[in-house]
Amino acid sequence: MARRSFWAWGTEDDEPTMAQVEEAARRAGERWGITIEPVPPPTIDEIELRPPRATVPEKLADTCSTDTHDRARHTYGKSFGDSVRAYRRDFTNPPDVVAFPRDEAEVVAVLEWCDQQGYIAIPWGGGSSVVGGLDVPADAPVAVAINLEKMDQVLEVDQTSRAARIQAGALGPQIEEQLRPYGLTLRHFPQSFEWSGLGGWIATRSGGHYATNHTHIDDFVESVRMVTPRGTWESRRLPGSGAGPSPDRLAIGSEGILGIITEAWVRVQARPVFRASAGVRFPTWEAGSEAARAITQSKLWPANCRLLDPQETQNAAGGDGTFAMLALGFESADVPQGDFLQHALRIAQEMGGTAPQEEIVIKDGESGDSEAGRQGAVGAWRNAFIRAPYARNINAGLGTVGDTFETSITWDRWPEFDRAVRDAVNEALQRVCGAGTLTCRFTHVYPDGPAPYYTYNGPGKRGGETEMWWAVKEAALEAVWANGGTVTHHHAVGRDHRPWYDRQRPDLFAASLHAAKKTVDPAGILNPGVLIDP
Amino acid sequence: MARRSFWAWGTEDDEPTMAQVEEAARRAGERWGITIEPVPPPTIDEIELRPPRATVPEKLADTCSTDTHDRARHTYGKSFGDSVRAYRRDFTNPPDVVAFPRDEAEVVAVLEWCDQQGYIAIPWGGGSSVVGGLDVPADAPVAVAINLEKMDQVLEVDQTSRAARIQAGALGPQIEEQLRPYGLTLRHFPQSFEWSGLGGWIATRSGGHYATNHTHIDDFVESVRMVTPRGTWESRRLPGSGAGPSPDRLAIGSEGILGIITEAWVRVQARPVFRASAGVRFPTWEAGSEAARAITQSKLWPANCRLLDPQETQNAAGGDGTFAMLALGFESADVPQGDFLQHALRIAQEMGGTAPQEEIVIKDGESGDSEAGRQGAVGAWRNAFIRAPYARNINAGLGTVGDTFETSITWDRWPEFDRAVRDAVNEALQRVCGAGTLTCRFTHVYPDGPAPYYTYNGPGKRGGETEMWWAVKEAALEAVWANGGTVTHHHAVGRDHRPWYDRQRPDLFAASLHAAKKTVDPAGILNPGVLIDP
Repeated sequence: MARRSFWAWGTEDDEPTMAQVEEAARRAGERWGITIEPVPPPTIDEIELRPPRATVPEKLADTCSTDTHDRARHTYGKSFGDSVRAYRRDFTNPPDVVAFPRDEAEVVAVLEWCDQQGYIAIPWGGGSSVVGGLDVPADAPVAVAINLEKMDQVLEVDQTSRAARIQAGALGPQIEEQLRPYGLTLRHFPQSFEWSGLGGWIATRSGGHYATNHTHIDDFVESVRMVTPRGTWESRRLPGSGAGPSPDRLAIGSEGILGIITEAWVRVQARPVFRASAGVRFPTWEAGSEAARAITQSKLWPANCRLLDPQETQNAAGGDGTFAMLALGFESADVPQGDFLQHALRIAQEMGGTAPQEEIVIKDGESGDSEAGRQGAVGAWRNAFIRAPYARNINAGLGTVGDTFETSITWDRWPEFDRAVRDAVNEALQRVCGAGTLTCRFTHVYPDGPAPYYTYNGPGKRGGETEMWWAVKEAALEAVWANGGTVTHHHAVGRDHRPWYDRQRPDLFAASLHAAKKTVDPAGILNPGVLIDP
Repeated sequence: MARRSFWAWGTEDDEPTMAQVEEAARRAGERWGITIEPVPPPTIDEIELRPPRATVPEKLADTCSTDTHDRARHTYGKSFGDSVRAYRRDFTNPPDVVAFPRDEAEVVAVLEWCDQQGYIAIPWGGGSSVVGGLDVPADAPVAVAINLEKMDQVLEVDQTSRAARIQAGALGPQIEEQLRPYGLTLRHFPQSFEWSGLGGWIATRSGGHYATNHTHIDDFVESVRMVTPRGTWESRRLPGSGAGPSPDRLAIGSEGILGIITEAWVRVQARPVFRASAGVRFPTWEAGSEAARAITQSKLWPANCRLLDPQETQNAAGGDGTFAMLALGFESADVPQGDFLQHALRIAQEMGGTAPQEEIVIKDGESGDSEAGRQGAVGAWRNAFIRAPYARNINAGLGTVGDTFETSITWDRWPEFDRAVRDAVNEALQRVCGAGTLTCRFTHVYPDGPAPYYTYNGPGKRGGETEMWWAVKEAALEAVWANGGTVTHHHAVGRDHRPWYDRQRPDLFAASLHAAKKTVDPAGILNPGVLIDP
């Protein structure tokens, strides 16, 4: 496999060619009625980094790297601002050292070194943070990024309980590949699936495959093992417990400020054999939303219940802009799913939905990967979903502005919330960019409310696009917060979401989290500035 | 309604008559081949309490009581040991004051008084603790039990999102009664349902109606409001979130050591219209267990999936001791459930189960309370379940020993775990009581393991039965702990489970919880000794 790109999503093979950039510049220019001068993508020989400010001790020589490519690759996450800065060859604040521990003892050794020296330790996960969760703090004396990519093994599989013990550095495809021989799957597919892994998912409360019921990785965690500067934190492996506040739920979402997750027992599943899916069209976004609510409240628990607004349906699922689409999917290793889908379709029809016959696929009883959910409008959406992060590799250098944000909100506030958020973001796009588009889909749906996911794009000014992006982002998050939503449903908080997160969480919870951090990380070396003030 | 009993489960009407006690003594004597001298139940005029060690300040005069009945009623929870001591008229360590705040301002005022004076504050919930969660610590200078029974209102109902804001003091029946006019239900039915309430359920991670999927109250909490000595902790109302570790999940299970929960938004549901249930017989406990596993792993998510061993089937569901029974139930407000039940029955049949036709009840499409799940063996089990806690009112005075304990364990360890626990408890019953019985059922079932619930009984020696009970309890908990289970699936930790809980939870989590407590309760007045050392 090609080497991971030091700046782009994916490998060096995924870096765009100059021809692709030129084509993208031409298209974006046409779209916004401006002229965009294409800029070639960065190459590693153009990058000169500040010399490392620390010397790796002898005993960590095999664990740590100060190589330029390694350090450049660990300078940024994958937010719009990160990508723009990387494309600009701006690597002014890289980590001094990158650690690649091969086992837990090496994780402990690296943390000990950091703790003793007062160096900042940044748990890097898969590096897919879009919230400033991996930044080297400006005032860090020395910063060490810790990448667990060499700890990528499924260590143990319990087929009876359908659970597996997996190292935190295993990326999505590595997990699935190692579980496949057992007929098992974790089936956790965040959009970052290819380049994010178990430890990062747990640390950031990643949102996965299931649109209803068990949506976050939280629900699949059976126990967590985490290394902190004061020792190891490991919970007992249990199917369920009521013994005090859940220790796992404090580790889950801790975004690297309490410790480095090294492995976890997670609940896995038999691979689906029975599948049924349909793309249901709705004359309006509102009608589709009411159907998603009714289906979720019926507790049929579809794996897929993703509603695209008319514009997203056009962009990603072959629509013409006149209808919204609800992608419904049911799956099971044990039970035919056709009846479940038919129940859901009846509910959808009551809400004004229509499902063209070619959009209904029921594959009951076929072994292996069936086609249900992989063709028609639902299949088109699926492919677009997985490919989306690669688009930024090209767009980051255009000078245009584009990003996503996501939240959740109770149904009673939903229609008004959507209007308020759209008004605020569209106003900001006009004000900041002079033009722009905003679309929305539901990624996950709960009985008490949807998790809407917004995507916006606008023309920008090269050199000013990070400030423009931030101005639009501020308007979006302010509207989300003011109208009752959460600052993030599954993208995490990091540093970027702090101003709104700080107003959202109970102050006494933040104080308690701070006290917990002081207990496990008294020197405050772990990812300072993320979630709480150091 | 009759006044709450100061010692028995329920009201004064539920206190046993002397004739009932005599009959119970005769039966138990026959059962164990011993002679039991019946002792009359206690009456309030027999109880003399230590005088209150504090004077209620003028401004709290309407909130607080030092009445003997009130103080006696708040001296104990409802564990076996509690009931025996109460029956013995042993009320040596009552709370000095009982507070009945009528609103949150009064909760704040009571906590302020305790905080300023260094008095111990004991959040009393519904008083149904079976784990020493309400005891007055021996070294408390003054203790104030805080009972929110006057805060029993459903404050707000959001029919669109199917959620309700409910005061923490509302007991199960009060919640259901106030939701019924809206066609809604919380549908959380712990065995203590009649005499426990929302605040206690949240503080103790109560296990409810649903045997699969959303089993604990945890899953139904949308947001929590909690008063602490350092102010109010309130989370934002959200259907789902990924913004840092969940603040609610630190409050949930905190057992009164962090604050007093005053109200919560909880997810409610439309009342079921469609129901389908069956009692499936299995030739062995092991075969039934395999069926429960397969059905749960199929993700059909039955509301009821309770497996009784042959002895429990005989005791509670009309069996003859030769077969185990799996009580299966499906329910929905929106979707007929017959197909779901048939799928589950097919799985059960593959595992050797048989469902007599009279044990299959499908009521699809009938409005109102249908009979499915309320007749046949399933119905018999249901009635026995709700009535069980009342039995202790009679048994507590016999001098016999009897209790329950519950846990959860992954499937891979289950059969061996069950054997080890049964061996240990049966050995202890022989050793301590000279005889005894032990039975088991699954109260909840997860894809990765069951939550077994054990019941034991043995002859005892009047005056020595609390020590005998504790000796059997120690053997049970030691076996549960040593074989990988949790010290509690839904009974909470309190003080009684501490020795095993302390070995179960990560030490660094306990230290973090301690630090969090110091933050919100610096004087350490809230339920000291529960969950962690003061």
